[in-house]
Amino acid sequence: MYLRWGGNALGDTLTQQMQAVKTTAKAIAGLIEAGNEVVIAHGNGPQVGMINLAMEAGGRSEAKTPYIPMSVCVAMSQGYIGYDLQNALREELLDRGHNIPVASIITQTVVDENDPAFADPTKPIGSFYSKEEAEEMMQRGYVMREDAGRGWRRVVASPMPVDIVEKDTIKALLAAGQVVVAAGGGGIPVRRQGNHLAGASAVVDKDFASCVLADIIDADWLIILTAVEQVAINYGTPAQQWLAHLSVADAERYAAEGQFAPGSMLPKVQAAARFAATKPGRKALITLLEKAEDGIAGKTGTVIEQ
Amino acid sequence: MYLRWGGNALGDTLTQQMQAVKTTAKAIAGLIEAGNEVVIAHGNGPQVGMINLAMEAGGRSEAKTPYIPMSVCVAMSQGYIGYDLQNALREELLDRGHNIPVASIITQTVVDENDPAFADPTKPIGSFYSKEEAEEMMQRGYVMREDAGRGWRRVVASPMPVDIVEKDTIKALLAAGQVVVAAGGGGIPVRRQGNHLAGASAVVDKDFASCVLADIIDADWLIILTAVEQVAINYGTPAQQWLAHLSVADAERYAAEGQFAPGSMLPKVQAAARFAATKPGRKALITLLEKAEDGIAGKTGTVIEQ
Repeated sequence: MYLRWGGNALGDTLTQQMQAVKTTAKAIAGLIEAGNEVVIAHGNGPQVGMINLAMEAGGRSEAKTPYIPMSVCVAMSQGYIGYDLQNALREELLDRGHNIPVASIITQTVVDENDPAFADPTKPIGSFYSKEEAEEMMQRGYVMREDAGRGWRRVVASPMPVDIVEKDTIKALLAAGQVVVAAGGGGIPVRRQGNHLAGASAVVDKDFASCVLADIIDADWLIILTAVEQVAINYGTPAQQWLAHLSVADAERYAAEGQFAPGSMLPKVQAAARFAATKPGRKALITLLEKAEDGIAGKTGTVIEQ
Repeated sequence: MYLRWGGNALGDTLTQQMQAVKTTAKAIAGLIEAGNEVVIAHGNGPQVGMINLAMEAGGRSEAKTPYIPMSVCVAMSQGYIGYDLQNALREELLDRGHNIPVASIITQTVVDENDPAFADPTKPIGSFYSKEEAEEMMQRGYVMREDAGRGWRRVVASPMPVDIVEKDTIKALLAAGQVVVAAGGGGIPVRRQGNHLAGASAVVDKDFASCVLADIIDADWLIILTAVEQVAINYGTPAQQWLAHLSVADAERYAAEGQFAPGSMLPKVQAAARFAATKPGRKALITLLEKAEDGIAGKTGTVIEQ
């Protein structure tokens, strides 16, 4: 069972994050209690943005801290969020009488050096800059894009995941009955160069990274926890329709029709459909965090299967 | 086999760190190749200092990033260093024809809330401040100490390690034949409050944390890699004597005599002796990184045993 859980839900401050992981732990402890093998992949958008900003501020400050690339910022965010999330889960499980180890694995996601995304970076990260600041940053090698009316932002590539480097570690821990926090923020993006792994200035698509890892661990369920209880078609129109079930074929058709918002519901539905398509019997569920157990029980959410 | 490797050896910049982990990987790949189960604990002094400085600069900058406590800075440093170290080891092993998984575990070290170290913080971290800056920081709750002539620095407690939270995860991975990077920077310091683990504003002594984890995993060797090839008594005097072997009793006697520098060789010898004292047959080795294999073979280094 593979849970993909948002990073925006974690909030912006430490206190908000500690509260958010508590809520998450309560919502998913029941799934672990029921004997499911569980891998949890968290988002990291606000956190990796915060780390990146602090590292840039450190470099400009008197302390002159060294330049830290995006791949290392992702690694740091996995340490930061993993620490909080594993503790909240550990505590909730202990409160329910279960002494089950929960571990966070620093996870790398292999991307293809020739992925067309590298030629056209589109994923905005960090804060807004003036035109002058943006020009100075472009001279330092950053790709900057103007965000209509709001200023300039750094953009990085969002290549597709190909493989998960630490897959054998994640599988060994699941086999030992442990709960694993992995592929945080989609994983640290790396490119294979022979036996060497080179960090990529990129942010891996988190939903597709979850699809790849859920397949590798041979999960029966891929659960994508998001801000809505069900997927809808004709969203926001009088013809709006919530979907309890969705075949892979219908999901692909609706996606092609433009039914789902790019960068939001679209990658979730696409990743869910891709996972369900890999093997008969595999199910993907898209729902709210607090509805995960009800969704598995068939009471709510959108289930995508062949 | 438990390897404790310094953080200062990692250098101050990313490039230096990448070079340092390569050298380390070459030095210890042979031990893994020989079939030893290996846990590697790295230091994090310069790295956690850099992260702490950047987070403080971020908070003072326009970005106003949130306050990040020392425990979270340690978690981030584990992600940062673990990512680099596991990759260097993975690559060196693959170059030698071995496909052995290497994983970094976010590791927490339990310390005692009543450890007297909390009443008297002594471990300096981060940069130097003026008296005015120090006074402002003290008002924000930091403990600051004047460092003779060089300005004011923040000091945190350095309590003794009691337990390693992720011990079952580390043991499961060793049992599966994997190489584990764990307890980075001595581990994230946490205090037990019922089922809750609360981060502590502290830096765990890295040598003693290694002693505790080496005992837990039932290691035969605790290898402390440092800046000298052997331990000496009467160091820097005409009577200086390098030691190839040292009994636990002699190690304790020399330590009590003040033969070893506090904060440097003293905790290493004490942790080594404590590990060797736990069980007959257990050996601790103190030597240079590049002499680790020779030390195991009895050709150099200082071996401490009962």
